[in-house]
Amino acid sequence: MRISIIGLGLIGGSLGLALKAAKLASTEVIGFDLDRRAESEARRRGAIDRQAHNLRRAAEGVDLLILATPVLAIRDVMEEVSNYLPDGCTVTDTGSTKSAVMSWAAELLPAHIDFVGGHPLAGKEHAGIEAADGALFRGKAYCLIPSPRASEESVKLVRSLITTVGARELLLDAEEHDQYAAAVSHMPALLSVALFTLIRGSVAWHDLAKMASSGFKDLTRLASGDPTMSHDMLVTNREAVVHWVNRLISELAGYRTLLAADNTDELLERLAMAKVQREDFISGRDPAGDPSAAGAPALGDQFSSTSLLGGLLGDRLAARTRDLSPSPQRESTNDSSEDRMKRR
Amino acid sequence: MRISIIGLGLIGGSLGLALKAAKLASTEVIGFDLDRRAESEARRRGAIDRQAHNLRRAAEGVDLLILATPVLAIRDVMEEVSNYLPDGCTVTDTGSTKSAVMSWAAELLPAHIDFVGGHPLAGKEHAGIEAADGALFRGKAYCLIPSPRASEESVKLVRSLITTVGARELLLDAEEHDQYAAAVSHMPALLSVALFTLIRGSVAWHDLAKMASSGFKDLTRLASGDPTMSHDMLVTNREAVVHWVNRLISELAGYRTLLAADNTDELLERLAMAKVQREDFISGRDPAGDPSAAGAPALGDQFSSTSLLGGLLGDRLAARTRDLSPSPQRESTNDSSEDRMKRR
Repeated sequence: MRISIIGLGLIGGSLGLALKAAKLASTEVIGFDLDRRAESEARRRGAIDRQAHNLRRAAEGVDLLILATPVLAIRDVMEEVSNYLPDGCTVTDTGSTKSAVMSWAAELLPAHIDFVGGHPLAGKEHAGIEAADGALFRGKAYCLIPSPRASEESVKLVRSLITTVGARELLLDAEEHDQYAAAVSHMPALLSVALFTLIRGSVAWHDLAKMASSGFKDLTRLASGDPTMSHDMLVTNREAVVHWVNRLISELAGYRTLLAADNTDELLERLAMAKVQREDFISGRDPAGDPSAAGAPALGDQFSSTSLLGGLLGDRLAARTRDLSPSPQRESTNDSSEDRMKRR
Repeated sequence: MRISIIGLGLIGGSLGLALKAAKLASTEVIGFDLDRRAESEARRRGAIDRQAHNLRRAAEGVDLLILATPVLAIRDVMEEVSNYLPDGCTVTDTGSTKSAVMSWAAELLPAHIDFVGGHPLAGKEHAGIEAADGALFRGKAYCLIPSPRASEESVKLVRSLITTVGARELLLDAEEHDQYAAAVSHMPALLSVALFTLIRGSVAWHDLAKMASSGFKDLTRLASGDPTMSHDMLVTNREAVVHWVNRLISELAGYRTLLAADNTDELLERLAMAKVQREDFISGRDPAGDPSAAGAPALGDQFSSTSLLGGLLGDRLAARTRDLSPSPQRESTNDSSEDRMKRR
């Protein structure tokens, strides 16, 4: 069995290391990267048995071709390798979006080639072969998106790749995949960048930097992701990302309204519920799978379905709240201090 | 010297542990918490020498009183202890917002008491005395906000508290503090909650949870913060938080516009710049302090100064982008695949 990996960055390199660590009988792993240094480093680290040096040699005689480049490069590689791929070989990828990749495969790969899309849900702050890690996929979800015409054999082959690297298969169609990934990965990545550039671009950055602590660092971590990877995943999933950006803006507008209210008990309740639900999620106690446990509707839903109306409402209330900011004259609530301290 | 700590949660407990670890000569640390279990646990862990059991005994004969409760409870405690505090004693706090606290101190504490506001920029995902850690403040910034009428002696005393627990003093006035904290701490905390509740409240939560990986977990970490602490800091800093929420919405709308454009080179450039600037910040290479290094203006600034206009522009462009989503017929760019892969 000959396996070729195109793109020897964090993901391609880690797949190579995981495959080599499995010590599969009579399996050769070949690698190609436009960056010759990455190719030789992958060889040196034992992620590949042999450097291909060019796409043609990576494709010829291959049984399983793994495309581990940024998403937009996948299209170009498909175009270039399609003439060299042997009959009956299987092609998979590791791209962060799937609809575009699946349509490129249908358009560009010859009929005798089976395409089975993949997307390992694993990453690190640092990119490149230097950060590659054979244990990167262990216990992680790995999305599997077979093309309609892929044979059972080919699906089985990619399934065994997923198992071999220690991941859990998650079977999806491309549209579902892209919607879900937009919500929990692509929109959050854009948000992380937006938060960072907003603060970094502020005229007060000099002072803000001194006060930025672990919370700010955590929330902006994804802004350190590989720019081309991020760009390609966002651009090939625009509609879904824009949809989730709009929903996030509505949600924020909803909290802005709660914060501007005279009585902020609902804000407190929301914060408390979020804490409980997140801890259930993190600890694995969340019974996701039980539809009756779907939780409260998102905040944005109850205020407005568009960010525009949410913005208007929020701004009006924000104007009103100027009179409510804390001051010695501020109305005290009926809570005793004991009640308040107990809430802590 | 007698030091009393009111509120023996993560911060109060950690201050106690750090003070005790310093083995100060003839210094007694007394603690009070409405939760008796927290009080006895603080004693058991050696964070305090003695339990006060009530506010009066915590206040009487004290030299330095540290208020380490959630922000809104600080007002109530000030009111209750003001009759028992001895002449010339110093009061400080650890609250996340300072304007409200400073005005309560001016209003509620007698003239013979010096108030010096404080805010250690240290935290943890987990709250409570169980999570307390004597090394929590080591190397962290600790904001110092003296009230106008505080004596030099009192400021010196709180300065020595900051040094003793291993923190770095950051001298600010209350308004600066609250603006900066809103930008890098309070707004991000609300954002973290909003992202979590948006996704958790989605009808697709069951599926989204399966795909939520480390990025989503990092970005929502602050949603696991103590709800009362979060509520109080948001409510006592409403205006500044609303200001920064609006700016973030504008920034997001700016990225939405870049993402919807035919040519997304500017998006790629922004992502690349964000990565470089964040890595400089994280690694300490950022020359914050050099005003000439203030960086590019925030994205939102170039689109509109209000979230409303930003939203309108963004929505129009979002509508246009539906025709631009990836498809086999999509116009290819002039980039060669080599150029694209090199970008990785």
